[in-house]
Amino acid sequence: QLRSLNERKVLNVDTMNPNVKRIEYAVRGPIVQRAVQIEKELKEGVKKPFTEVIKANIGDAHAMGQKPITFFRQVIALCAYPDLLEDDKFPEDAKNRARRILQACGGGSLGAYSASSGIEVIRQDVAKYIEKRDSGIPSNPDDIYLSTGASDAIVTMLKLLTSGEGKTRTGVMISIPQYPLYSAALAELAAVQISYYLDEDKCWSLDVNELRRAVKAAREHCNPRALCIINPGNPTGQVQNRQCIEDVIRFAAEEHLFLMADEVYQDNVYMEGCQFHSFKKVLFEMGSEYSSVVELASFHSTSKCYMGECGFRGGYMEVINMDPDVKLQLTKLVSVQLCPSIPGQALLDLVVNPPQPDEPSYATFIKERTANLHILSEKAKMTEQVLNTVPGIHCNPVQGAMYTFPRLTLPEKAINAEQEQAPDMFYCMKLLEEMGICLVPGSGFGQRDGTYHFRMTILPATEKLKIVLEKIREFHKRFTEEFS
Amino acid sequence: QLRSLNERKVLNVDTMNPNVKRIEYAVRGPIVQRAVQIEKELKEGVKKPFTEVIKANIGDAHAMGQKPITFFRQVIALCAYPDLLEDDKFPEDAKNRARRILQACGGGSLGAYSASSGIEVIRQDVAKYIEKRDSGIPSNPDDIYLSTGASDAIVTMLKLLTSGEGKTRTGVMISIPQYPLYSAALAELAAVQISYYLDEDKCWSLDVNELRRAVKAAREHCNPRALCIINPGNPTGQVQNRQCIEDVIRFAAEEHLFLMADEVYQDNVYMEGCQFHSFKKVLFEMGSEYSSVVELASFHSTSKCYMGECGFRGGYMEVINMDPDVKLQLTKLVSVQLCPSIPGQALLDLVVNPPQPDEPSYATFIKERTANLHILSEKAKMTEQVLNTVPGIHCNPVQGAMYTFPRLTLPEKAINAEQEQAPDMFYCMKLLEEMGICLVPGSGFGQRDGTYHFRMTILPATEKLKIVLEKIREFHKRFTEEFS
Ligand SMILES: Cc1ncc(COP(=O)(O)O)c(C=O)c1O
Ligand SMILES: Cc1ncc(COP(=O)(O)O)c(C=O)c1O
Repeated sequence: QLRSLNERKVLNVDTMNPNVKRIEYAVRGPIVQRAVQIEKELKEGVKKPFTEVIKANIGDAHAMGQKPITFFRQVIALCAYPDLLEDDKFPEDAKNRARRILQACGGGSLGAYSASSGIEVIRQDVAKYIEKRDSGIPSNPDDIYLSTGASDAIVTMLKLLTSGEGKTRTGVMISIPQYPLYSAALAELAAVQISYYLDEDKCWSLDVNELRRAVKAAREHCNPRALCIINPGNPTGQVQNRQCIEDVIRFAAEEHLFLMADEVYQDNVYMEGCQFHSFKKVLFEMGSEYSSVVELASFHSTSKCYMGECGFRGGYMEVINMDPDVKLQLTKLVSVQLCPSIPGQALLDLVVNPPQPDEPSYATFIKERTANLHILSEKAKMTEQVLNTVPGIHCNPVQGAMYTFPRLTLPEKAINAEQEQAPDMFYCMKLLEEMGICLVPGSGFGQRDGTYHFRMTILPATEKLKIVLEKIREFHKRFTEEFS
Repeated sequence: QLRSLNERKVLNVDTMNPNVKRIEYAVRGPIVQRAVQIEKELKEGVKKPFTEVIKANIGDAHAMGQKPITFFRQVIALCAYPDLLEDDKFPEDAKNRARRILQACGGGSLGAYSASSGIEVIRQDVAKYIEKRDSGIPSNPDDIYLSTGASDAIVTMLKLLTSGEGKTRTGVMISIPQYPLYSAALAELAAVQISYYLDEDKCWSLDVNELRRAVKAAREHCNPRALCIINPGNPTGQVQNRQCIEDVIRFAAEEHLFLMADEVYQDNVYMEGCQFHSFKKVLFEMGSEYSSVVELASFHSTSKCYMGECGFRGGYMEVINMDPDVKLQLTKLVSVQLCPSIPGQALLDLVVNPPQPDEPSYATFIKERTANLHILSEKAKMTEQVLNTVPGIHCNPVQGAMYTFPRLTLPEKAINAEQEQAPDMFYCMKLLEEMGICLVPGSGFGQRDGTYHFRMTILPATEKLKIVLEKIREFHKRFTEEFS
């Protein structure tokens, strides 16, 4: 009666969850796996045409050498090991912040679970931060849910929104190109992905007519219920103007859609004339006709901006106009996994409540923050400039976020070279093998049929970024010649 | 065309995900919400028959006053703020450990994302820990997936296992009483919960005949594919003997079931004569007839045992005999949310690789660990003893874990007092209102029809635990009289 070795596993690719199989996730896909392998080969002494792999595939600032904000890490160290509160080497404001956080923790320890929606004091600090950011428009701590990175909160919202079968199945509008968390979560939930295309010729801007086209077509086969926006954009680096946000809000109101605003890059705006506008603020400035009805969830994270603290997995979402009964369900849902990481919550508290002008750490904090943002801004400009000097590469301005998504003109022969691989995957894999540069092919984010792109981050240190851009230039020329 | 204020929300209880609505989660349910309210009322000066709420509802050791392990927190502080590596006050072994962890982090920072399955060095340390624990039976780092607490990994495994529709829908066997994460995850996934009952009269032991009954009945209406075991048990506090584990493994092999062993309480064994046996070890000692075929995932966490570091959300799972193609799918699935918290991964590394006998922190570490476990053991005994002196309460020995799940004899009138509420919810709510003691009703964990229980943790500090037990004794007497 026992299983023989040849019998199939209980859990195999035919019996496993089919929704999980449908997930595609390029940011950590085959290119990145090969990059890790190549790094190992280099270590083992295998000869390559390069001595190190430079990774520009993921928005991971510290991994690329960005330094943490001193004050943030001092407070975390104090919270982790409170004996340090007796140490003269730490500034008083860091100690006060640590004491305040510990007081809000169960048993005064980072090691206790918190309320599932997060520590109350921190939710209050988040609300104050949002109020200040949005010129005084009120924010209620009861509308704030802390999360394990923004990813967690985004998936939770999509989960709440998904229901129905067949033609009544929930459809969710996402931009193309998109950050692949969205398509992956929708695949896993078996919700319907409704793609709307950003306009590459207009600097990846969002056109409401395209939203109209997409929702109309989708109503034939599903029930469109939510619209996701990433602003500033990943992978496209655009920053939406106020008018566009108003148009989107009006569209959501007309079409009865729940709005999800992914604003994790809210401090990453580089371009002269561009400015971050939160969906919350624009919504409230449009008057109660909108602000009392449009349902909105917006997301923020410790992972990006000037701090880049990805590893702490801190984040929050604010929900506006959410049905109170649904909020109870949301609270129950997040309870199941107990609570977000407390070090992550603590770090988020510092992001929303950084040193104030009258505090000893203020000057250093401002210096570090400004320096980090300044360097990013320089790198954004350099990336655009250099890439646009390469014949066959077209790069929109990097207005914000940490990425560029340039269009590649590829020779016919290269496009047909590999049947099994998308042409831009073929391109990126060759770039990795020949140059040691790790990028993600555009096909991992979605793009208009017949166009080809890659996504690269602007995060490598300035000198490395120069090398990356030079190598791309050299490679693109050689690649074009080889396949012409 | 705009929505009026009276129009229904896009997202309301009728349109939201029906699987989420089906979730029940008692550990943080109405009793706990009321407890938080009462605490606020006390602060505001509202008069109550007690001056503080004592919470014995959740396995949250630090919140109940248990102190963190000094070495662990020193290393975390060093990792968070590496300037401290220059500080003479930290022992050399803590510094070495911090340097080793930081070296394995991207950019030498806790702020970088890691590989989605966790930092490689830490997965290697986990494998070594398991090998040592299991008397040399090999463990492969490629079988280790780090997670955001054990909760995360458990939900991920259940997700992988769920497929099919109607009579072919995946069924998962879970114990009753159970830890409600399991029923909640199954509800959310719309998988079929197959309940098997633990034998209260035999100290909550697991009887394979009951497993047979349950799986046979379930085959009529679903496809049983996995069997979950919690050992040592939550909420029941039993420790399974070797024979029982062998029987369970044989049963899983015969019935072609994937085994999930929740072993987060592996160091929490108190009772003379009881010992923790890992499923992995027993499986391999049963010979290759079993060890080469039975698929097993086992789970561990930083949250319990002697360290109780719940807030760090560290954990891992080890998968044995998992189909290689499924492993690729698993790796992809965990990639979507990027990676577990790095402070949590670091803390897990310390748990699996604590100070060694030749290191300066060893003596203190052993002293602290022993003290924490000793106190838990004392409290386990005290809890059983005192509760069994109360007429109408029957309490099995607390062999392990951190809980007891005593049976209550309730008067008929109390059982019928409230139509809307389970009788043990009624009991626990009254206990909270009258005595300020917060427990969870047995109905939140599942119990045989017509029996009533509560779950309490043994975590309150010894003096507080005495008060809790005395108050329960007093309350139970009064309650019984009131309703007789
Ligand atoms: C647009 C966008 N949203 C969300 C996230 C998730 O970040 P995290 O989960 O680290 O907060 C990212 C990460 O790159 C992102 O680019
Ligand atoms: C049996 C059992 N499994 C898993 C968990 C989850 O713990 P964590 O997610 O904190 O690791 C708990 C927590 O109480 C538990 O009791």
